[in-house]
Amino acid sequence: MAQKGESTAVGLHPLSGIRVLAVEHFRMGPHGTMMLADAGAEVIKVEPPEGEQGRIITVRSSDGRDVPILPASLSRNKKSVTINLQNQEGVELFKSLVKVSDIVWENMRPGVMDRLGVGYAVLKKINPGIIFVSLSGFGQGDIMPGPYMDRPAFDAIGQGMSGLMFAAGSPEQSPLYNTAVMADTVPSMMGAYSALVALQMRHRTGLGQHVDVAMYDNMVALNNLSINLYLMAGVKIPRGALATSAPFGPFKAQDGYVVLAVGGEKIWQRFCTAIGREDLVGRPGLGNGNERALNLETVLRPIVEGWMADKSRQTVCDLMLEHGVPAGPTQDVEDIVVCPHLEARQTFWEVDDPVLGKVKVIGNPIKMSAAPPFAPTPPPMVGQHNQEILGNLLGLSAQELDELKARGAL
Amino acid sequence: MAQKGESTAVGLHPLSGIRVLAVEHFRMGPHGTMMLADAGAEVIKVEPPEGEQGRIITVRSSDGRDVPILPASLSRNKKSVTINLQNQEGVELFKSLVKVSDIVWENMRPGVMDRLGVGYAVLKKINPGIIFVSLSGFGQGDIMPGPYMDRPAFDAIGQGMSGLMFAAGSPEQSPLYNTAVMADTVPSMMGAYSALVALQMRHRTGLGQHVDVAMYDNMVALNNLSINLYLMAGVKIPRGALATSAPFGPFKAQDGYVVLAVGGEKIWQRFCTAIGREDLVGRPGLGNGNERALNLETVLRPIVEGWMADKSRQTVCDLMLEHGVPAGPTQDVEDIVVCPHLEARQTFWEVDDPVLGKVKVIGNPIKMSAAPPFAPTPPPMVGQHNQEILGNLLGLSAQELDELKARGAL
Repeated sequence: MAQKGESTAVGLHPLSGIRVLAVEHFRMGPHGTMMLADAGAEVIKVEPPEGEQGRIITVRSSDGRDVPILPASLSRNKKSVTINLQNQEGVELFKSLVKVSDIVWENMRPGVMDRLGVGYAVLKKINPGIIFVSLSGFGQGDIMPGPYMDRPAFDAIGQGMSGLMFAAGSPEQSPLYNTAVMADTVPSMMGAYSALVALQMRHRTGLGQHVDVAMYDNMVALNNLSINLYLMAGVKIPRGALATSAPFGPFKAQDGYVVLAVGGEKIWQRFCTAIGREDLVGRPGLGNGNERALNLETVLRPIVEGWMADKSRQTVCDLMLEHGVPAGPTQDVEDIVVCPHLEARQTFWEVDDPVLGKVKVIGNPIKMSAAPPFAPTPPPMVGQHNQEILGNLLGLSAQELDELKARGAL
Repeated sequence: MAQKGESTAVGLHPLSGIRVLAVEHFRMGPHGTMMLADAGAEVIKVEPPEGEQGRIITVRSSDGRDVPILPASLSRNKKSVTINLQNQEGVELFKSLVKVSDIVWENMRPGVMDRLGVGYAVLKKINPGIIFVSLSGFGQGDIMPGPYMDRPAFDAIGQGMSGLMFAAGSPEQSPLYNTAVMADTVPSMMGAYSALVALQMRHRTGLGQHVDVAMYDNMVALNNLSINLYLMAGVKIPRGALATSAPFGPFKAQDGYVVLAVGGEKIWQRFCTAIGREDLVGRPGLGNGNERALNLETVLRPIVEGWMADKSRQTVCDLMLEHGVPAGPTQDVEDIVVCPHLEARQTFWEVDDPVLGKVKVIGNPIKMSAAPPFAPTPPPMVGQHNQEILGNLLGLSAQELDELKARGAL
C-alpha cells in the first residue's frame, strides 16, 4: 500500500484538500475527526503545550506497562501543532490557520471557545466559509439553548439520560452501563456526518455555519425505537427483548451462545424445519412475531435451548445458515481479533505508535471503490507538525517559532 | 416554521438538490436516508408494488390498535414511487431515474441488485457520477470479499458478533441483547456519512463510486474501546465497568439511579467535597481512576450508595452539578418524552401520518445555524409520488403510467 503522504499529494483520497482544525480532547472529539482523517482530510490537532488531556489516559497492560490508549486508536493519520489559546499570540496564530482551513472542530465546554476569543462569531468574520462543528453534552446557546446547556457530560451521562441503560438486561436489574462508550462515539460520528452536510451546503452557498452536535440529543435519537414506540403506540418495549420478533437474540448452546434473528414468518418456517419441528408452524401462541415474543420465556426459549443443549455454537450456526436463518455466535474480543472475515475485510491496521511501537488497532470500516488503500501514518507526538504547519504553511521562520515558544504561545 | 415544499424550492436546505433513490427496507436502509431527507435531500423510496417489507411491521398499541411503527419514524420527508425491479420495464424506468439522480442507496442482500440488472457495474455506465451505497451484513464481493459475505444479518447478529453483547451486565450473566437496535442504526448512520464522503470526492473528480458499508465491520468499529484495548494492551475490559475511571456509571439513590461520571482527579476531589468526604482524596486504593475502578464494588460503591441512600435523584444531581461533578438521572422513556431540555431543543416532531394521524416522533438531532427549520412532510403512502416523479420528472403521460401499471412494472 502507498504511504498516505504520497497519494494525498495528488489528491486521490476522498477528502483530500479538506483541512480540519481539531480543538479536541478525550474521545468525543477525536473519534469523528479520525473518520475524516481516515478518509484523507488533513486533520490538525491543535493542542495546548502540554498536549490534550486524553493523552494521559493509560491502561496497565498484561505485561505491566502503562499504555496510552487513545493516540494510536483515535489519532492515527492526524497531525499535531501546539497553540496556547490562552495566549493572545496563540489566538492570532489560530486565526491565521482558520483563514486557510475548512472546518473548526471542537469539544470544549460550551462558551469556552467564545471566552478564548475563537468562537464562531469571531471566526466567521475571518473566514465566512469556515464550518464550525461544536460537540458538547447538551448543546450550544447561540443555536438552540435549553435548561441543561451548561452541564458537563461524559459518556455515562449520555447513556443514562437517553434511556439506553434500560435497553438491555432484565426488568429487575439496575440500569446497565455499556463499556462501548457509545455516547462519546455515536455523537462524534454524527459530528463527522454533519461536517460534511455543511460542506455540501457550502458548495452551493459559499458560506460556512455553526453546527451544534449534542450528546444528549444524539443518544436519544440512537434510542429511537423504544422512544418512538412509546410516543406513537403508548407502549414500553420490554427491557432487553424485541416485542415484534422471536427468537431474536442470544440463546444458549453447549459451548456458548448463538444469536438467532428470526425476523418474519418465512424465516420462522425455515427455523422450524432446521430444528425438525415443523409442528410449531402456526401453533397457537407462536403464530407471529408478536405472539412468540410474548411467549418467549415460557414456551419458546425452553424449546430452542432444549434443542441446542447438546450442540456446539458452530453446529447450530452452520445448520441455521444452511436453512437461511440469520445466525451467528456471540463473540467476545478474543474471537473478534482472530475472525477470518474481519481479516479479509482489512479491519485491523498496524500503526507505528511513537510510544508503543507497532500495534494493531481497528481501522476504517467504510470500504469505497474509488478510495485508494493507504498505510496509516502514526499518531503525532505533541507539536510534531509545528514546523510543517506553522512554519511551512503559515510561513513563520524557525526563529519566530522559537520566540513564540519562549513567550508561551506554542 | 416553513413547509418543506416552500423552502426546498429555493434550495435553502443543506442537501437541497441532492436526489437519492432508496431501494431500502426495514430499518438499516431507512435510517440513513432519513438523516439525508431531514437535511433536505430529495429521498425517493423505490418500492415494489406492494410496498417495502418494513411497512407491515406493527406493534399493538396501548389502546389496542396495530400501529405501523416504521413509516412515521423513518420515512417522514421522503417520497415513494413503485417500481417493480423484477419487471424489465421497471428496470428501464429505474435506469431513467438513475440518470437524473446523485445517489443509489440499497440494503438488499449482496448480489441482488446485480441479479436484477441494476448493480453498480451497470449503473455507472448510465451515470458515471452515481454514488452507489450498499448496506449489508458482511460486505460486498466486488469491493472486499470475505468468507461470511453471503450470510444474512439482522440487528441482533451485528450486536452478537461485534462483542457488544458482552459490553454490559455482569460476568456471570448471559450475553445481553440491546433493544436500541444499534446494529441497524449505527451502520446506517455511517452509510449516510460515507455517501457524503463520496459526494465530496465527486466534486473533485466528477465520478461516483461503490460504497460498501457492512453491519459487522461498523459494529466492531463501534465497540472499538474494548477491542483496541485488547489489541494494544492485551487486557480485557471488565464487563459493564470502565477500567480507567470510577465512580463512573449508575449508582442507587433513594428513588432511583443517578449516573456519576468522575473522570480525572480534579473531578474526584470535587466529588469528595460534595459528599463531605475530603478524607478520601489520596486514600490508598482510591488514589487514581484505575485503582478506584479496581476497588469499586468492595470499597467505593458502599461509600457512594451509603451516602445516597436517603437522598433523591434530584437532590444528588443538583448537589453534584453545583460542585462541577458530571451527573444525571438514569431516565427511561417516560422521563425522556417530558424532558424540558429535549423540548427546548425541539427534539420531537409532529408528523401527520396518513394511517395514524398526528403523532410525535424523534426529529433531527443535528442543529445547524444556516439550516432553516421546517415542518416534516408526512411519510408517503406506497407510490404516492408516482405522478410527481415518474410523470412530471421523467415525462411519462398518465396513459403510459396506467399501461405500465397494468403490465406489472409499477
